[in-house]
Amino acid sequence: MSFTPLIRQLIDALRTLPGVGQKSAQRMALQLLERDRSGGLRLAQALTQAMEGVGHCKQCRTLSEDEFCPQCTDPRRDDSLLCVVEGPLDVFAVEQTGYRGRYFVLKGHLSPLDGLGPEAIGIPELEARIKAGHFSEIILATNPTVEGEATAHYIAQLLGGGDLVLSRIAHGVPLGGELELVDGGTLAHALAGRRPISS
Amino acid sequence: MSFTPLIRQLIDALRTLPGVGQKSAQRMALQLLERDRSGGLRLAQALTQAMEGVGHCKQCRTLSEDEFCPQCTDPRRDDSLLCVVEGPLDVFAVEQTGYRGRYFVLKGHLSPLDGLGPEAIGIPELEARIKAGHFSEIILATNPTVEGEATAHYIAQLLGGGDLVLSRIAHGVPLGGELELVDGGTLAHALAGRRPISS
Repeated sequence: MSFTPLIRQLIDALRTLPGVGQKSAQRMALQLLERDRSGGLRLAQALTQAMEGVGHCKQCRTLSEDEFCPQCTDPRRDDSLLCVVEGPLDVFAVEQTGYRGRYFVLKGHLSPLDGLGPEAIGIPELEARIKAGHFSEIILATNPTVEGEATAHYIAQLLGGGDLVLSRIAHGVPLGGELELVDGGTLAHALAGRRPISS
Repeated sequence: MSFTPLIRQLIDALRTLPGVGQKSAQRMALQLLERDRSGGLRLAQALTQAMEGVGHCKQCRTLSEDEFCPQCTDPRRDDSLLCVVEGPLDVFAVEQTGYRGRYFVLKGHLSPLDGLGPEAIGIPELEARIKAGHFSEIILATNPTVEGEATAHYIAQLLGGGDLVLSRIAHGVPLGGELELVDGGTLAHALAGRRPISS
């Protein structure tokens, strides 16, 4: 068989979603058609509104349909702290920790092989943001990957030497894990970064 | 954080897709917004067109935007065979095997506890379809679950006693599996349904 053209078109379109292959897309399409047409139409409308209405915050560059995002406009946040992350989802992750400073969202990480240099990921805008603000500490919270580390290192080199405190999020063993399952590199970081126990 | 309202609405709408939880929905929404807005808009359009344009084939009742589906209108198919399945995805699965007869698509399986009796799943329409056609064999290809078996049994009781050959798809060990991993019920079926090897 041959699904009919409209169904095939829907399945193909669903496959553009990350993590959705042919089988999942088929299941999604047929489930919506068989059981939840109003849900399907609601999704279509939400997609259209978001794709057309959401831009980037002019200050921190996270996704936002307003000129400035809620994190940038909140007057109760700490204006002396700036957390630099790779993407909008990282803002969400850091927010969960209770952090209440400001953010700057890069466009991913440095990746010279893909042609992504400092300009492409927004380093000049980060410098401008820091110059315009009154930060005492910049927290580099790029991902703990090779590229994320390199990006943090690059920014640290660029911004270092002044009064600004530059910090990097700690590497170590994740909570709830088991030592025997932790990779050697992480464990080495955890040992090197050990802290005295205050009794 | 708080995602902005349009993004939150999109994440909620994506969660109506089967198999998509909060984390996947976030990833999907942000990936579309960050990297593939035209893909998002294409998906919105495909959803709208399919939800509004796709109905059911008047003859076999599978999903189709035309009055009759490709399987019902193809003149080269075998008009003496009718395969009864639980849903449109099963049509797709059976098609992959090279089967080239006709289909009838039930609305799921009998489930008295959920109030789904013969009328709810379309048994009267199946009877009408069989009366109107010239079938020599009806293949009951409902799922090999308790409900699917019960549904096949019910249909067999209803249609039996005439010239019509009624058959049920074979139960047995799946290809590529290992015997030690096959459940006892399946293995019992495979033994009971053993076939002589023609040399």
